[in-house]
Amino acid sequence: MSRPIDPGPLPSGDLSAPVSAFVHRIRVGWADCDPAKIAYTGRIPCFALEAIDAWWEHAIGYDWFRLNLDRNYGTPFVHMEVDFRSPVTPRAPLECTVVLTRLGEKSLSFCVTGRQDEVLCFEGRFVSAFVAADRFEPIPVPADIRSRLQQLVGEA
Amino acid sequence: MSRPIDPGPLPSGDLSAPVSAFVHRIRVGWADCDPAKIAYTGRIPCFALEAIDAWWEHAIGYDWFRLNLDRNYGTPFVHMEVDFRSPVTPRAPLECTVVLTRLGEKSLSFCVTGRQDEVLCFEGRFVSAFVAADRFEPIPVPADIRSRLQQLVGEA
Amino acid sequence: MSRPIDPGPLPSGDLSAPVSAFVHRIRVGWADCDPAKIAYTGRIPCFALEAIDAWWEHAIGYDWFRLNLDRNYGTPFVHMEVDFRSPVTPRAPLECTVVLTRLGEKSLSFCVTGRQDEVLCFEGRFVSAFVAADRFEPIPVPADIRSRLQQLVGEA
Amino acid sequence: MSRPIDPGPLPSGDLSAPVSAFVHRIRVGWADCDPAKIAYTGRIPCFALEAIDAWWEHAIGYDWFRLNLDRNYGTPFVHMEVDFRSPVTPRAPLECTVVLTRLGEKSLSFCVTGRQDEVLCFEGRFVSAFVAADRFEPIPVPADIRSRLQQLVGEA
Repeated sequence: MSRPIDPGPLPSGDLSAPVSAFVHRIRVGWADCDPAKIAYTGRIPCFALEAIDAWWEHAIGYDWFRLNLDRNYGTPFVHMEVDFRSPVTPRAPLECTVVLTRLGEKSLSFCVTGRQDEVLCFEGRFVSAFVAADRFEPIPVPADIRSRLQQLVGEA
Repeated sequence: MSRPIDPGPLPSGDLSAPVSAFVHRIRVGWADCDPAKIAYTGRIPCFALEAIDAWWEHAIGYDWFRLNLDRNYGTPFVHMEVDFRSPVTPRAPLECTVVLTRLGEKSLSFCVTGRQDEVLCFEGRFVSAFVAADRFEPIPVPADIRSRLQQLVGEA
Repeated sequence: MSRPIDPGPLPSGDLSAPVSAFVHRIRVGWADCDPAKIAYTGRIPCFALEAIDAWWEHAIGYDWFRLNLDRNYGTPFVHMEVDFRSPVTPRAPLECTVVLTRLGEKSLSFCVTGRQDEVLCFEGRFVSAFVAADRFEPIPVPADIRSRLQQLVGEA
Repeated sequence: MSRPIDPGPLPSGDLSAPVSAFVHRIRVGWADCDPAKIAYTGRIPCFALEAIDAWWEHAIGYDWFRLNLDRNYGTPFVHMEVDFRSPVTPRAPLECTVVLTRLGEKSLSFCVTGRQDEVLCFEGRFVSAFVAADRFEPIPVPADIRSRLQQLVGEA
C-alpha cells in the first residue's frame, strides 16, 4: 500500500556546511501519560526511537520506512539503555537531540537526550545493526550512506 | 524474520460441534491507563481489534499475522464504531466477546463487547474488507475460509 | 509530578477574528505501521484523538492534561465512529482537521478528517461528555468555556 | 473512576513455600509488529514493563495500579537497558521471566528475559525507585512489602 518511489541517489545537499545537532520536537499529550500524571515509562524509549527515525530522514533523506521499502536497508536495534532523569509531561514540548556517536563497519551508535524547558528528562544510548531488509542479514553500511554519515559522527 | 510455514489446508476441527461465543480475555494494566485513572479512550478500539485478531485464530487457525504472511490474505477495516458504556480499569480482566454478525461477498462485520466483572464497558461494530495482501485489492472470501465462517455467523 | 499552575481566566485572544478550520499535523512513522506497510488500524482513532486534544488547546488554551489537572474538567468519550477511506503511510504528513459540530448542554460532538497529500484517509465522528474530573460526573459545560466554544461550532 | 478498595494488609500466602521464577506470558499480535514483520523495537521495553507490573501483583498482591491508588506507593524507573537477541513475532507466545535481582533501601533492580519457543529474544535490566505516589518523593520500601520481597530476591 505504500507508494514505492525510485530511490535514485541520496538527496543532494550542501554537505560542506557545518553540521549542527539535530533536534526533534515531540508533542507530549494526555495519551502518553499514566495515572502518575507523567509520560509512561514505556513511552520514553518510543520518543527516543521516533527521534532517531526522524534523524535518518534528516541525515540521508530517508526515514526508516523509506529506507526499508525503497532501499531495502534495515537498522534493527541490538541494544538500548535509558537513564530517566526527570518526568516528561504535556506541559512543554519534548526536545530530543540525536547524535551519531559511532559509525562502525556494520553498526551505528546513537545518543539521544530529551529535554523539556531545558531540563534534562532522559538520556539514552542506542546501538543498531545495518541489514539487508529482505534477508535481515548484517551488511556493511553502504558507501553512499557511510560517506554522508561520517560527516555527522560526534556532531553535537 | 517471521518463519514462514507451508500453510496447507485449514486446521481441522469438529465443525459439527455447536458454536459458542468466543471470548478473548485481556489483562488491563497501568500502561493502558491515563491520568483519569481509567484505560485511555484510544486503547479501547485496540482492545477490540486484538480480540478480533484472536477470533481469526480461533475461527480458522490463522491470526492476522499468519493470514497475511502465510496465506496472502488481508482484512483491512473500512469502518468502526464504538459506544463507551463504562470505564475500563486494571481492577478486573477485560472479557471481549466477538461475534461475526455478517459474512458478505467481500466483507465481514463484527460486534465486539467488552465486559469487566460482568459490567458492559463498551460495544463496537467493525467492518473489514477481504483483500489479496500483496496487491491490497478486494477479493471474494476464499471458499475454504467462507465455509468455516458461515458456521460462525451470528453465533452468540 | 505535573507542575500545577493557577489557571486563572481563559487565555485572552481576539475572538472577533473570523474562525478558520483547525488543522493538526502529525508525523507518521515506522512505529505506526504494521506488516501491511500502512499505519495500523488502531492508530487511526489515536491520531484523531490527538488532534482533538490539540484542538482543545487551540480553542480554549488548555489541552486535556491541563483541563483535567488545572481546571478539574474532563471530557470522556461516549461514542466514536471512523470510516477508513485510504491507507495512512509515513510518506506524507497527516493533516487532521477538527470541527466542533455540536455543542450540547453536557456534551460535544466533533468531526475529524485526516488527509495526506490532499487525499482523504479517514473521517470520524466523536462525542464526548463533560464531567467534573475528580467526581467523573456529568456537568454542564462551564460558562467561560461555552462562550468560547460557541464561536467555533460548525467552523470549517 | 477506579473503584478504591480498603487495601488492608498484604494478601496472605504460604511464604515458606520455595519460590520459583515468575513467568508472564504475552500474546504478541499483528498490532505489535512493524513493516519488518517483527515486533517493533519500542514494544519490547513495554513487554518487559508489563511483565514487571504483573510480577508485582504476583509478589505482593498489588499491580502498579493498585499499589499507586490503594497504597499510595509508586515505583518510577530510573534506568533500563535491553539487549535484543532475536526478533519477537506473533508465531509463539512471549514468555517473560522476571527476577528481582536486588532489593536496595529505596530502589529495586529487575532482570527480565523474553523467550519464544525457548529461544532467548531479549534480556533487560530495570531499576526503579520507591516513592510516595502523591508526593513523588523517594521513601524506604515499607516493612511489610520489604519482608515479602526479601524472599524473592535472586529467585530464578
